[in-house]
Amino acid sequence: MWKEQNNQLVRTFEFGDFSEAFAFMTRVAILAEKHNHHPEWTNVYNKLEIKLSTHDAGNVITEKDRKLAKAIDELL
Amino acid sequence: MWKEQNNQLVRTFEFGDFSEAFAFMTRVAILAEKHNHHPEWTNVYNKLEIKLSTHDAGNVITEKDRKLAKAIDELL
Amino acid sequence: MWKEQNNQLVRTFEFGDFSEAFAFMTRVAILAEKHNHHPEWTNVYNKLEIKLSTHDAGNVITEKDRKLAKAIDELL
Amino acid sequence: MWKEQNNQLVRTFEFGDFSEAFAFMTRVAILAEKHNHHPEWTNVYNKLEIKLSTHDAGNVITEKDRKLAKAIDELL
Repeated sequence: MWKEQNNQLVRTFEFGDFSEAFAFMTRVAILAEKHNHHPEWTNVYNKLEIKLSTHDAGNVITEKDRKLAKAIDELL
Repeated sequence: MWKEQNNQLVRTFEFGDFSEAFAFMTRVAILAEKHNHHPEWTNVYNKLEIKLSTHDAGNVITEKDRKLAKAIDELL
Repeated sequence: MWKEQNNQLVRTFEFGDFSEAFAFMTRVAILAEKHNHHPEWTNVYNKLEIKLSTHDAGNVITEKDRKLAKAIDELL
Repeated sequence: MWKEQNNQLVRTFEFGDFSEAFAFMTRVAILAEKHNHHPEWTNVYNKLEIKLSTHDAGNVITEKDRKLAKAIDELL
């Protein structure tokens, strides 16, 4: 489900409506803080795009990104 | 599912974990503001109790409570 | 503070950390649902960019965007 | 600010409105998951009461509660 694009792990999500999308974002926000690793993410109504890369490693994909991606997947 | 207790509509919810419970609370918070009617609610980990009554009407159950309860049920 | 760019109202925000940024996003999410008008928004850690335009009007800036922008400003 | 009552650390908070109170709750939710320690908390409109105790230690106040209380205070 996650694609590698421009040195980022990218996944898009679609929900029933905005409320459902934002509730999912709240869960991802909690995960991000637990992992101390934060996404670049964009939401429009029921759509969400999450991009993961590791700034401190020079904006490439690292194990931190793969772990957070896996944790996000486990929410679904 | 909602019980009438002490002039309040009361319902309890149980989720898989805290994150799931709080995501649901976020959706209820959005509904509460849309309805301009707010619950008394208590959360502990994966458990949530919501109590609805109308302060302005003298702390009794009114149509505002029944409408919010219905909207909350529709989230599930 | 809001700029008009490509038929969108655009404003960027910077907070102390991710938690503060996401708390603000929660307040904007509640406003968006109350206004029944939703932003395109992107967050990275403590930074947030909000873009407003009206899809139903052909992706141009309308009164709906100006009202939501004003309500967002009043949060600050 | 925190009081010891019935083997719990208890503090009440008052905000400008519901939106502000719920934004603060979102930040506390994130902290709770980071600490892997969760409050018993009750919200009504702009008011919030947080009660902390450690279930695994027999519902008494422990260092986990004092640490979470301190982290919550640092949000303010």
